[in-house]
Amino acid sequence: MSRTVYLNGEYLPEAEAKVSIFDRGFVMADGVYEVTSVLDGKLLDFPGHLTRLSRSLAELGMGNPHSDAEWLEIHRQLVARNEIVEGIVYLQVTRGNPGDRDFAYPPEGTPQTVVLFTQSKPGLAANPQAQTGLKVVSVEDLRWSRRDIKTVQLLYPSMAKMEAKARGADDAWLVEDGFVTEGTSNNTYIVKNGTIITRQLSTDILHGITRASLLRFAAEAQMKIEERPFTIEEAQSADEAFFTSASAFVLPVVEIDGAKVGGAKVGPVATRLRELYLEESLKSAI
Amino acid sequence: MSRTVYLNGEYLPEAEAKVSIFDRGFVMADGVYEVTSVLDGKLLDFPGHLTRLSRSLAELGMGNPHSDAEWLEIHRQLVARNEIVEGIVYLQVTRGNPGDRDFAYPPEGTPQTVVLFTQSKPGLAANPQAQTGLKVVSVEDLRWSRRDIKTVQLLYPSMAKMEAKARGADDAWLVEDGFVTEGTSNNTYIVKNGTIITRQLSTDILHGITRASLLRFAAEAQMKIEERPFTIEEAQSADEAFFTSASAFVLPVVEIDGAKVGGAKVGPVATRLRELYLEESLKSAI
Repeated sequence: MSRTVYLNGEYLPEAEAKVSIFDRGFVMADGVYEVTSVLDGKLLDFPGHLTRLSRSLAELGMGNPHSDAEWLEIHRQLVARNEIVEGIVYLQVTRGNPGDRDFAYPPEGTPQTVVLFTQSKPGLAANPQAQTGLKVVSVEDLRWSRRDIKTVQLLYPSMAKMEAKARGADDAWLVEDGFVTEGTSNNTYIVKNGTIITRQLSTDILHGITRASLLRFAAEAQMKIEERPFTIEEAQSADEAFFTSASAFVLPVVEIDGAKVGGAKVGPVATRLRELYLEESLKSAI
Repeated sequence: MSRTVYLNGEYLPEAEAKVSIFDRGFVMADGVYEVTSVLDGKLLDFPGHLTRLSRSLAELGMGNPHSDAEWLEIHRQLVARNEIVEGIVYLQVTRGNPGDRDFAYPPEGTPQTVVLFTQSKPGLAANPQAQTGLKVVSVEDLRWSRRDIKTVQLLYPSMAKMEAKARGADDAWLVEDGFVTEGTSNNTYIVKNGTIITRQLSTDILHGITRASLLRFAAEAQMKIEERPFTIEEAQSADEAFFTSASAFVLPVVEIDGAKVGGAKVGPVATRLRELYLEESLKSAI
């Protein structure tokens, strides 16, 4: 079935959704994005994603082309038209099409390009990887230094994921100056003696919406949290390791660079946090 | 007049040249590019650009969709159809359109996206900035670490150019660990006591085609060359400063972070090198 996607005010069959070769997103990677999960046909952590979108746009000197109500309406239209029960809605805003290529930003008033589409992912909540855990390998973090801005400059995360696959793993954890920054498209955590350890927010990592919600739920559940960097060696000898993202929720990691973590078994903290996140975020899903 | 552009085998009016919203170039910045200058209707340093294109593609695990003869034919068609006497031909290759968004590379055999277009720039060779010189400011280099691959991840260079404009300058020189890496879209040089000093090639900088040709011409003209990093302070106290790129050729810099270089006058070495580059590269233009 052909998806209906959204492009600059129109709902179109996916094959008809095209942008100019001069779009700043295509020639300059001058765009930002968000991914919102859908469970039970509802949007998870939606206000968080809209807040981060506004921040990303502002950091790049771009305005927000839609009000929160408009964004919600487009998301809901796409979920309804594509009958998404479990899946994601992807949203991208670029600095638009100035009609030619130039490093300088387009003149004020140049319409931004707005693209949204869905991906149906039945079984997202019941992901079997939550029971088996994943294997990751460490890869040097070569990305630009403003990872707090969610730009479409995803070539290196893509390369790192391919390297992980080639090395027999599911994903890569990125390492800079000896410390894990984050995963290729997720935030990373370890558990030691019951304490959840995750890198503190800075420009070095994405400010995960799932991360923020999870840490809030964990704090409310009286769990101990320590926000600081950790090394691959510390992660390998931790009791548990896991990561979070909008579409993974919480997924356990049972092997890092060939070393088994927590006896290669999925631990109780990651399992509890996944349950907690799904339960709590569904309560506020819209 | 509407340009004729090239997209995946077709010559099209520019307004009709569109790519899918799922193109890897649009959602992942997974593409590389080249810019070749045109003078007297001929392509400058063309073999160098094709060699670098192949290298960029290979570094990203992509094949080269065209033979050198095919690339030349497309370039020549566009130059002819758009009556380009002085200007540039822009070329971009992305990993194509897999029909959906995924960090993993598309399956083998997914056609790459190939885009070429021209920009007419009458007066390119007689650029008055060669007489007046340019002002630059230093900006921290926050780009990814593989600047030797000419990817479309140009958001930060674009941001740095805008910052330079906001600070009353023409362009920015990027600084990392105290040393100049390069300009936002060009290689940088200083001259001290007759010696041309420019940063050595590494993954830290683009391997400029104009840079390579210019250094060869300079060596043939018995000029002294030193390939090593330099600081902003050293550049400010140099006798001359300049930069090179495919479309700028050689352009002098007369002010760096508010400090006048060489008495704010364009120096003899930059002037000589510009003449030398234009003269010699035109000899091999095709």
